[in-house]
Amino acid sequence: MIISIIGAGNMARGIGTRVLSGGHSLRFHDRNPGKAEELAASLSEAMSGADVQASDAEGAAAADVVVLALPYPAGREVAASLGAALSGKVVVDISNPVDFSTFDSLVVPPGTSAAEEIAAAVPDAHVVKAFNTTFAGPLASGEVAGRPLDVFIAGDDDAARETVAAVVTSAGLRPLDVGPLRRARELEAFQFLHMASQERLGLGWSSGIALLP
Amino acid sequence: MIISIIGAGNMARGIGTRVLSGGHSLRFHDRNPGKAEELAASLSEAMSGADVQASDAEGAAAADVVVLALPYPAGREVAASLGAALSGKVVVDISNPVDFSTFDSLVVPPGTSAAEEIAAAVPDAHVVKAFNTTFAGPLASGEVAGRPLDVFIAGDDDAARETVAAVVTSAGLRPLDVGPLRRARELEAFQFLHMASQERLGLGWSSGIALLP
Repeated sequence: MIISIIGAGNMARGIGTRVLSGGHSLRFHDRNPGKAEELAASLSEAMSGADVQASDAEGAAAADVVVLALPYPAGREVAASLGAALSGKVVVDISNPVDFSTFDSLVVPPGTSAAEEIAAAVPDAHVVKAFNTTFAGPLASGEVAGRPLDVFIAGDDDAARETVAAVVTSAGLRPLDVGPLRRARELEAFQFLHMASQERLGLGWSSGIALLP
Repeated sequence: MIISIIGAGNMARGIGTRVLSGGHSLRFHDRNPGKAEELAASLSEAMSGADVQASDAEGAAAADVVVLALPYPAGREVAASLGAALSGKVVVDISNPVDFSTFDSLVVPPGTSAAEEIAAAVPDAHVVKAFNTTFAGPLASGEVAGRPLDVFIAGDDDAARETVAAVVTSAGLRPLDVGPLRRARELEAFQFLHMASQERLGLGWSSGIALLP
């Protein structure tokens, strides 16, 4: 598949590394084209033979799967600006809408989620929540405590969830399909707790949420 | 310590087994005294030398730690009825306020939690959320996938959280102190997702939520 990632930060690098290890083609897009080019060059060098390039917005929207690797609400704004270009596309929201000023709550109101707000902004896209509980660090290897990372997947379109699950599996991770997009509320809530507890629990942003066994 | 468990169902048996393995004294109370006596006799037989007995409500409230092993809102009602007897006590709420008619939401409104509602009903007690993410099955052995079960602990009283963490550690489990009682919102949300996904993920109610590594 051709996967595009919008954004060129740590999460873009982590997910991009996994996607390339799964044999997919990868396009990075960033509002700062230099950052996307730099990240593409870095991964191309690290993974010989990988098909990874920077792309303009149009090229990114033309991919099979479009990953919004941006903070919320920037991801929602970018999705809305792409608009019709995302019709029928699988759009992956990875965001955690944490109120970083207090680190004590989310910036989306109770009873919804960043994923649902993004879906409302691009109603003709198939929005899937995934990768919001995986930190960038463990994504580099795809493992935590010797186990493939668990990737929770929620979305209202069955085929879109299955597509994302296939990408996740090919990337050496474990997909956990938890059903409708509104389950993103619980995924965002728990990852907020996970993030808010890092210092208290001495975890160092290298931990992973898992369902055992 | 003397621990009391109010309720005599599967979770009471699971937590009771762990508490006894930690060398604590245990008192079971149930509105049906025969059920509490039966459970106490069963665990006494299974664990020779264990100090486990049935108790009346007054005896249960006099313990060092009082565990409400009841569904929500029954736990809130029992706590409210014990009232002043719980003043200054560590009271553990393990409930998951799932709407079992739809299995699609919680019965507490967004922006609060069962634990916070119980705390409001017994304002002079030190309410701690714990054991809501551990199923009864894995509690029998205390392990899942060869790892000690993770027990997430939230509460507003530092000493009460530390007391519960000490019980959890002595029981062979791993305490994860996630801070204030309002973190119960996220714990209840994610365990709801965990429960709602059992069938879809083929998990068989023997899985555990873990923070790895």
